[in-house]
Amino acid sequence: MITENYYLTLTCPNRPGIVAAVSTYIFELGGDIEEAQQFDDKASKRFFMRVSFSCSADSQSLKAGFVEIAKRFDLTWDLRAVKDLKRVLIMASKLDHCLVDLLYRWRIGELPMIISGIVSNHPREVYSSIDFADIPFYHLPVTPETKLTQEAKLLEIVADSKVDMVILARYMQILSDDLSTKLSGRCINVHHSFLPSFKGAKPYHQAHARGIKLIGATAHFVTSDLDEGPIIEQDVTRVTHGDTPEDLVRKGRDLERTVLSRALRYYLHDRVLINGATSVVFSD
Amino acid sequence: MITENYYLTLTCPNRPGIVAAVSTYIFELGGDIEEAQQFDDKASKRFFMRVSFSCSADSQSLKAGFVEIAKRFDLTWDLRAVKDLKRVLIMASKLDHCLVDLLYRWRIGELPMIISGIVSNHPREVYSSIDFADIPFYHLPVTPETKLTQEAKLLEIVADSKVDMVILARYMQILSDDLSTKLSGRCINVHHSFLPSFKGAKPYHQAHARGIKLIGATAHFVTSDLDEGPIIEQDVTRVTHGDTPEDLVRKGRDLERTVLSRALRYYLHDRVLINGATSVVFSD
Amino acid sequence: MITENYYLTLTCPNRPGIVAAVSTYIFELGGDIEEAQQFDDKASKRFFMRVSFSCSADSQSLKAGFVEIAKRFDLTWDLRAVKDLKRVLIMASKLDHCLVDLLYRWRIGELPMIISGIVSNHPREVYSSIDFADIPFYHLPVTPETKLTQEAKLLEIVADSKVDMVILARYMQILSDDLSTKLSGRCINVHHSFLPSFKGAKPYHQAHARGIKLIGATAHFVTSDLDEGPIIEQDVTRVTHGDTPEDLVRKGRDLERTVLSRALRYYLHDRVLINGATSVVFSD
Amino acid sequence: MITENYYLTLTCPNRPGIVAAVSTYIFELGGDIEEAQQFDDKASKRFFMRVSFSCSADSQSLKAGFVEIAKRFDLTWDLRAVKDLKRVLIMASKLDHCLVDLLYRWRIGELPMIISGIVSNHPREVYSSIDFADIPFYHLPVTPETKLTQEAKLLEIVADSKVDMVILARYMQILSDDLSTKLSGRCINVHHSFLPSFKGAKPYHQAHARGIKLIGATAHFVTSDLDEGPIIEQDVTRVTHGDTPEDLVRKGRDLERTVLSRALRYYLHDRVLINGATSVVFSD
Repeated sequence: MITENYYLTLTCPNRPGIVAAVSTYIFELGGDIEEAQQFDDKASKRFFMRVSFSCSADSQSLKAGFVEIAKRFDLTWDLRAVKDLKRVLIMASKLDHCLVDLLYRWRIGELPMIISGIVSNHPREVYSSIDFADIPFYHLPVTPETKLTQEAKLLEIVADSKVDMVILARYMQILSDDLSTKLSGRCINVHHSFLPSFKGAKPYHQAHARGIKLIGATAHFVTSDLDEGPIIEQDVTRVTHGDTPEDLVRKGRDLERTVLSRALRYYLHDRVLINGATSVVFSD
Repeated sequence: MITENYYLTLTCPNRPGIVAAVSTYIFELGGDIEEAQQFDDKASKRFFMRVSFSCSADSQSLKAGFVEIAKRFDLTWDLRAVKDLKRVLIMASKLDHCLVDLLYRWRIGELPMIISGIVSNHPREVYSSIDFADIPFYHLPVTPETKLTQEAKLLEIVADSKVDMVILARYMQILSDDLSTKLSGRCINVHHSFLPSFKGAKPYHQAHARGIKLIGATAHFVTSDLDEGPIIEQDVTRVTHGDTPEDLVRKGRDLERTVLSRALRYYLHDRVLINGATSVVFSD
Repeated sequence: MITENYYLTLTCPNRPGIVAAVSTYIFELGGDIEEAQQFDDKASKRFFMRVSFSCSADSQSLKAGFVEIAKRFDLTWDLRAVKDLKRVLIMASKLDHCLVDLLYRWRIGELPMIISGIVSNHPREVYSSIDFADIPFYHLPVTPETKLTQEAKLLEIVADSKVDMVILARYMQILSDDLSTKLSGRCINVHHSFLPSFKGAKPYHQAHARGIKLIGATAHFVTSDLDEGPIIEQDVTRVTHGDTPEDLVRKGRDLERTVLSRALRYYLHDRVLINGATSVVFSD
Repeated sequence: MITENYYLTLTCPNRPGIVAAVSTYIFELGGDIEEAQQFDDKASKRFFMRVSFSCSADSQSLKAGFVEIAKRFDLTWDLRAVKDLKRVLIMASKLDHCLVDLLYRWRIGELPMIISGIVSNHPREVYSSIDFADIPFYHLPVTPETKLTQEAKLLEIVADSKVDMVILARYMQILSDDLSTKLSGRCINVHHSFLPSFKGAKPYHQAHARGIKLIGATAHFVTSDLDEGPIIEQDVTRVTHGDTPEDLVRKGRDLERTVLSRALRYYLHDRVLINGATSVVFSD
């Protein structure tokens, strides 16, 4: 009998008994809970939970039996075998530090995922020093005139490749409202500022002009409202009056790749649940 | 019917069903789990759990009913009404920054505890600018010759005042092996280095001589082995070649008071469980 | 012959020869440079410098001789014997954590200054557990109707006590435009957010609603433009989805007092020079 | 007339007049100081200085004229045109995260250096996914029996390629005492712990067993005394009781590459001067 690892995530209106029902269910099927985290949001009165457990029952029967509990507590839920990797599409532009970093972490097994494709508005030659292994590469050039067609093509790739999550790895194009809405909750962006400060273009130059003493980067879900989606992860680093905007860009690169890879890692382990305008992140 | 808040902490050999049993028990008594954290130590094969819940049952009956589960899973456990505050004894020497900080946090309600006394090897006048409210002050001077008597007096105070935890708030005397052993697990110290670096005397001077780039402070349980007890909390701050040992002392003060107050706060909320030579800290 | 320590700070349009002229001047008067820092702002084309030196010449003659260099390079400058302490006025409201912290650091010699007074819109009884030593306390209650009079009284105190710098230690009243302008460059505020995020009221509640993962505090000069003055120091700390607005307030207190005391310390050592909308901070 | 950028670094017994002499010299040759930092070590009574300046004089004549000042103040000094890049040899083993990171930063211009070679005890195939551009690769396998020959070969490469600095980018072999001594001051290592804690083998496992709450990495000069050379840069990251040794290894990778690249960057900009057992780091 093979033991499989599973992630169960759920959210529902808060009421007593959820933890008891879920943990008893897992126990009765012979499962062993490895890690469990929960969050009881007093404001929205919603409950969030993530359980990681091992069990010899298969995914199918685990899900079937859970339907009754899900109904009883009005759950929005997901149960996934850890081995069933998420499918991720990475989008990049000329600045390739996040792309290179994600590929490296994926190669050494730090980010367990299937990269279903790499999309860029620049041709393959721009990345000539990077080994894409056998990941499909899509060159989708874009101009103001072709934006709609380009985005349609992108959505086609997302659908055809059964993409679970689109990662904007410093993809420098602004998504149309329509695309943002369609990808809402299925797309993570890294913004090169400590949001909500310095939204929009050239945040490092804005930060320099304002004379701030720490710069930041933010990984967040894309929603129809630009730079306003639920934040997943942020970090900062110290800067001084002596740092030029170019220095901030350099220091920021390290932040961006760290913050994006952490956010993606949380997602790949089902540690992120959207809670209205914010994210619940059950970090490890 | 009055609803009370409780903390339940437990540790036991790991096996399936503990979470189910505990959460079902709380549910059946009408309790509502606010927060639950667990840790399954693969190395020691021990399981650790902390549950914060509200319930209208009283402490007495909650404990009585739990005995059966405790036996079944071979639990070491504690259940406490949040309102039953821990009793803490603070020990200080001439450097009073940690003492002042703890008193301030206690005064504004940040550290929910009963300070059963303040002990110093210096007289009350040394702290003339500090308001001790109506906390008993014990002047226990100490010399190599009187150390044994002084420590006996201290243990008497600990026993008489029903002290749960002794806090060494930069108490500069080294406890005897005998006292350390007697207070083992019931005494938290703050060491002014990033342990295990720079054990023993004058850690800031050691750090300066070694040319390190970050200094630290460490809050840990006292055990018979000096500076080797389970670590509860640590933090660091950046220093440069330009910092003198005196600068390190100054920068270190901020670390020491932060680290000690965080460790104490974790303890006061039953977030710390000893796990052999280490601590499980269910941080918030 | 007594050797005195001095701080020299200056700013001027950038051109070659300034460092040579200044260091030669100090050398020829028998001075020994302990620390020198400079900043050449490429954007504004202005040069900033701070020199700490020891010298047996007295303040008077040092200044007199320097006038020629100052003219030659069109300097805005200040030269001060370290022993001539700055005069600081602290303003506080009900939340007294910054006030208590500043007083403590002053008492142990960490902040070399003369506290010329403490001003509050609350009466002395509110601070009954705090030892004010012999610092004058001014109770200046304020209502919308009396605001103008109250501020006039404040300016009188500033003038009468020869105050160099006003410190708003979580003083919760908004200064009028007129007062802000009059104190511009002579008043440091601590704002309980990572500016420019969450300007204005209740920043921790704003931060919570936005779901950010790090909260911050900012010490900045007051100018006529509220929360927009040159930033001196900032810091952040990690928060999670589980932190309530009240938790942010608690975690923020530690940030606020740290950030404000660091900013004040920089000021007291003449390490801060205003550069348009930003600050040059020659940190140690 | 072409303007060149220069770095001047020097150290000498401290006495008044050094800054004046140096800055006057630069000024008289028409140079413009961009950045100057100094450190007056009260303990060793030595003075350290770094000046970055632009000047139309050539390197040769700048050096020739400086000889007199150098003699007068008994200077150990170096003057270098910024465009004359340092020559660096990178050594790696199977773990390639530091190697990949250094190559990436070099490729995008963040680390201005000539990589004169890459040395590994593993063959080229191990790095098949990495683009080495036209950097020479040396496969120097090593066994206890061949260690002496291997190290002799390495020293040959260092000499033949005119290597300024050897970078041990997680090169997992322990250098012999003889090699360490020969490379002393010309070799930077990254150790995967917060030195001086957890010297020697398997530091992450040591850290885990000790239950520390922050792990670190340290970049330091190699000297004959293993893991005891002057520290250049350190950093830490938070860990919890829940992190396995493998988690520490993963979290540590990010620290190691950050710390090593920062140390190398400081070196490449002549910001690091050895001061006995410690380093003076004039960070930007």
